[in-house]
Amino acid sequence: MQLGLVGLGRMGGNMRDRLRAAGHEVVGYDHHPEVSDVSSLSELVEKLTESPRVVWVMVPAHVTESTIDEVAALLSEGDIVIDGGNSRFSDDQPRAERLGARGIGYLDVGVSGGVWGKQNGYALMVGGEKADVDKCMPLFEALKPAGEFGFAHAGKHGAGHYAKMVHNGIEYGLMHAYAEGFELLQAAEMVEDVPAVFKSWREGSVVKSWLLDLLDRALDEDPTLAGIKGYAEDTGEGRWTVDEAIRLAVPLHVISASLFARFESRQDDSPAMKAVAALRNQFGGHAVKKG
Amino acid sequence: MQLGLVGLGRMGGNMRDRLRAAGHEVVGYDHHPEVSDVSSLSELVEKLTESPRVVWVMVPAHVTESTIDEVAALLSEGDIVIDGGNSRFSDDQPRAERLGARGIGYLDVGVSGGVWGKQNGYALMVGGEKADVDKCMPLFEALKPAGEFGFAHAGKHGAGHYAKMVHNGIEYGLMHAYAEGFELLQAAEMVEDVPAVFKSWREGSVVKSWLLDLLDRALDEDPTLAGIKGYAEDTGEGRWTVDEAIRLAVPLHVISASLFARFESRQDDSPAMKAVAALRNQFGGHAVKKG
Amino acid sequence: MQLGLVGLGRMGGNMRDRLRAAGHEVVGYDHHPEVSDVSSLSELVEKLTESPRVVWVMVPAHVTESTIDEVAALLSEGDIVIDGGNSRFSDDQPRAERLGARGIGYLDVGVSGGVWGKQNGYALMVGGEKADVDKCMPLFEALKPAGEFGFAHAGKHGAGHYAKMVHNGIEYGLMHAYAEGFELLQAAEMVEDVPAVFKSWREGSVVKSWLLDLLDRALDEDPTLAGIKGYAEDTGEGRWTVDEAIRLAVPLHVISASLFARFESRQDDSPAMKAVAALRNQFGGHAVKKG
Amino acid sequence: MQLGLVGLGRMGGNMRDRLRAAGHEVVGYDHHPEVSDVSSLSELVEKLTESPRVVWVMVPAHVTESTIDEVAALLSEGDIVIDGGNSRFSDDQPRAERLGARGIGYLDVGVSGGVWGKQNGYALMVGGEKADVDKCMPLFEALKPAGEFGFAHAGKHGAGHYAKMVHNGIEYGLMHAYAEGFELLQAAEMVEDVPAVFKSWREGSVVKSWLLDLLDRALDEDPTLAGIKGYAEDTGEGRWTVDEAIRLAVPLHVISASLFARFESRQDDSPAMKAVAALRNQFGGHAVKKG
Repeated sequence: MQLGLVGLGRMGGNMRDRLRAAGHEVVGYDHHPEVSDVSSLSELVEKLTESPRVVWVMVPAHVTESTIDEVAALLSEGDIVIDGGNSRFSDDQPRAERLGARGIGYLDVGVSGGVWGKQNGYALMVGGEKADVDKCMPLFEALKPAGEFGFAHAGKHGAGHYAKMVHNGIEYGLMHAYAEGFELLQAAEMVEDVPAVFKSWREGSVVKSWLLDLLDRALDEDPTLAGIKGYAEDTGEGRWTVDEAIRLAVPLHVISASLFARFESRQDDSPAMKAVAALRNQFGGHAVKKG
Repeated sequence: MQLGLVGLGRMGGNMRDRLRAAGHEVVGYDHHPEVSDVSSLSELVEKLTESPRVVWVMVPAHVTESTIDEVAALLSEGDIVIDGGNSRFSDDQPRAERLGARGIGYLDVGVSGGVWGKQNGYALMVGGEKADVDKCMPLFEALKPAGEFGFAHAGKHGAGHYAKMVHNGIEYGLMHAYAEGFELLQAAEMVEDVPAVFKSWREGSVVKSWLLDLLDRALDEDPTLAGIKGYAEDTGEGRWTVDEAIRLAVPLHVISASLFARFESRQDDSPAMKAVAALRNQFGGHAVKKG
Repeated sequence: MQLGLVGLGRMGGNMRDRLRAAGHEVVGYDHHPEVSDVSSLSELVEKLTESPRVVWVMVPAHVTESTIDEVAALLSEGDIVIDGGNSRFSDDQPRAERLGARGIGYLDVGVSGGVWGKQNGYALMVGGEKADVDKCMPLFEALKPAGEFGFAHAGKHGAGHYAKMVHNGIEYGLMHAYAEGFELLQAAEMVEDVPAVFKSWREGSVVKSWLLDLLDRALDEDPTLAGIKGYAEDTGEGRWTVDEAIRLAVPLHVISASLFARFESRQDDSPAMKAVAALRNQFGGHAVKKG
Repeated sequence: MQLGLVGLGRMGGNMRDRLRAAGHEVVGYDHHPEVSDVSSLSELVEKLTESPRVVWVMVPAHVTESTIDEVAALLSEGDIVIDGGNSRFSDDQPRAERLGARGIGYLDVGVSGGVWGKQNGYALMVGGEKADVDKCMPLFEALKPAGEFGFAHAGKHGAGHYAKMVHNGIEYGLMHAYAEGFELLQAAEMVEDVPAVFKSWREGSVVKSWLLDLLDRALDEDPTLAGIKGYAEDTGEGRWTVDEAIRLAVPLHVISASLFARFESRQDDSPAMKAVAALRNQFGGHAVKKG
């Protein structure tokens, strides 16, 4: 089927390729003209001749709202807008209502798979009306991996982004569990070949996973990770996951610790530990290091 | 090749089957006569006619030391004892020296794979001398999964159990990350079909893993896990992992939180929270519930 | 000076007593007529004859906004409203603007001290314009403890509640630190007289504090706290503190763990631990307990 | 009474002063001759003319065992050795038995108070036989603060050091709770005068404590702690506390997080976060910083 795809970055560009490989007609727009199929959003919408028109928005979170509004202004009753970006789930219901007032359908889709999705397929979590989901199903079929997994209609508007948010929260925890194990194995002198041990776990072990495969790949390139700084950004989903846990009174020790570790990774010095050092100096006369 | 296998429980029994299916001759002993091939350890050793004799001990941690000593007393110079159980890594070097004094080789092998190992193969992490590892390699080949993964000679005596210990620590963290995500999705009202979302992650997503496959399997059987109590034992490895982190000054927020969660799962009431409740009552006049 | 005081519960009632003991004229209103000095807010405002009129609102968080609006409607230019309740700091600036549009001043005051404030004085953290703070200073002087401590003009509108929010976050952490120590001492068999040890720390030790005094008091009444359930509510401030940490990328391991512990204290069973138990059963055949 | 005091560092030196001020006769020995009253341990013992002789050892943990053995060799039946240092509690029972075999009594004493103990008195937690405690009571009375607090006979051999260990674990948690609050207040832009807020809490508030007094003191000297590096050592007690929690299956989120924060404060880069950064690069193509 036909699809307008707005945003052709790392994710959107690969998705265009995968959709086209599956036989779909994709009209892509990006503000970088060298990757764009059309020169404007209005040209994109003009090229969509099937009805309903479906436009998938795959842009950074901070421009999603304005992009969707711009796209929606060019669409008509019966058309559908999909937000596949990392929007906060709470944006979806208001957005759906705003578009719905003009008869435009809306789906929020959490998309996982990273740069590997082009070849492996993407896991898709969708929120919105079943009728709209059904209309877009050929696209989802093309994007998801072959087989029975990789797609869920999670619920109403917002459920797709909610599922993706929790997915990413879990991802933080999984990554940090492996990371702690890596640090401990490196610190100990017992295991001589740490990368070999990680590699051995890739089959047969309880901890086998795709993240483990990727860590093994990274260790193949740099066995001690000496060339990489211990610095990691966090995106909205991790923070929203903890926000939701607080709101819903759900204890979330592991995921919040993983998030805090990312915060710490970006600090040159810890203000909290300055206070601890100051206190130790005050009561015990322990020397402080100069800041 | 020929192998004496001591301990035919959930793990040992399956390993015997897998080894035999690969053409090895296994003489198994267990104190439950109905599963045992021989009636005593001495009979087991008598039946081993190849040289060197290799005896694999696969018994609960608290009887490993005595079992190994009993086995070793029946062996001679050049023979090899393998401990495939969940011993603490620090037991291995003394044990290796004790056996080595009589010319008996020793390997410590961390074995992962659970009840699925029989069909999928086991991940094996081995500590000990290379010459001994080489002699036992046909056994390891049979037990491990096909392909390049599932086996590592991790280092000297103790390295196998050390690697397995950290493996299990990571496993605690991974399990708890999924568990927190499950609890949050259940608590929220956004996602209508929580099991469907977990299922969707099994392909294409960054969090896909074998543990996720198993959680999906559990949710197929009981979609809300209403029939299962939130109660989990812990085994030595999780605790030893945190012990080691403390010894080596490695921050281990995620794995220790996962371990503490298991402790909490076994408490009827929290003594710490009694103190918190008492304090709130003292300063704020907040009512306490009766214990 | 003269003060209208709305809300005569555990906090407001004691504050009225302390203010009167210091010679101030307090007109109190509460919806429980038996403790109220007047029968309505309008009667309260009528009785305030000094100019500017100052009304201190000390009501539960969920009725603060409506109460303040009701009070403000009865006041005139130059009058001052104080919110001494546990409002979220982000409510203060909008509220100050709303009142300011009618020339009414606004101060947000974080009040700490619990049921002991009447006798010991309250610690007060104030947000708002200096001119308004100065006008109300006689009230603050009466409410705070004697001496140099117990009062801070923390900053602009919202700063008082912000300081109180962080104060309570710290309080959660402090309480839980003592609580963990209590649980550990109880679990170990080394210390025979746990309450005696807590009592000994009240002077001379690095951990001496008012909370420790209160814990000692609680242990005097019930040495093992057997009569108290390990159950604790949390109020907004703890959650807002973690929310703010997330927003500002501040790692907050201790305070968030203390908050999560309160969440856990109110759960009959842990959904997360159900998932862990289910996983252990799936991979290792470990028995589960029925839910 | 008469006391031999071995170790005249920051703690021992002050204790000598406080004991002498109370009228006791203290013979002090230190390997720094400029502070020592005698030139050898044997001279110290010779100068003790009262019976029983009591020798208090107050030396760094790593030389405690050898010092005690050296002292004990010079003593006779009925004499008493006190270890006031930061020994691991598990050393005490074996030590008591070793000394007891020669009829020498032994007390383990946890001493809190830091550099302020000289003026404020020390909190003392004592393990050992009541008869020995009674004999040394005049010393304890002199060292502890005036009043009913500051002393506990915690239990048998080891109970004193055990109580001190948990005391220090709690101390870690308390310090870090204040530290997190400090960091959050600094990061936010709401409170203009962070030190003033901490100062205000010193009276009237629920979080008032001696540690808070000391933090206020540090902020008086350096209001942003800019001159202090966020670096803190940890001593044995914090680690042993978590070790014990692991052994006894006690969840210890807060204290372990505080300990881990100290570990982190001493790392130039986080190996765990290298692994997280490597993983993000692998699955999402997120750029890494060079190590």
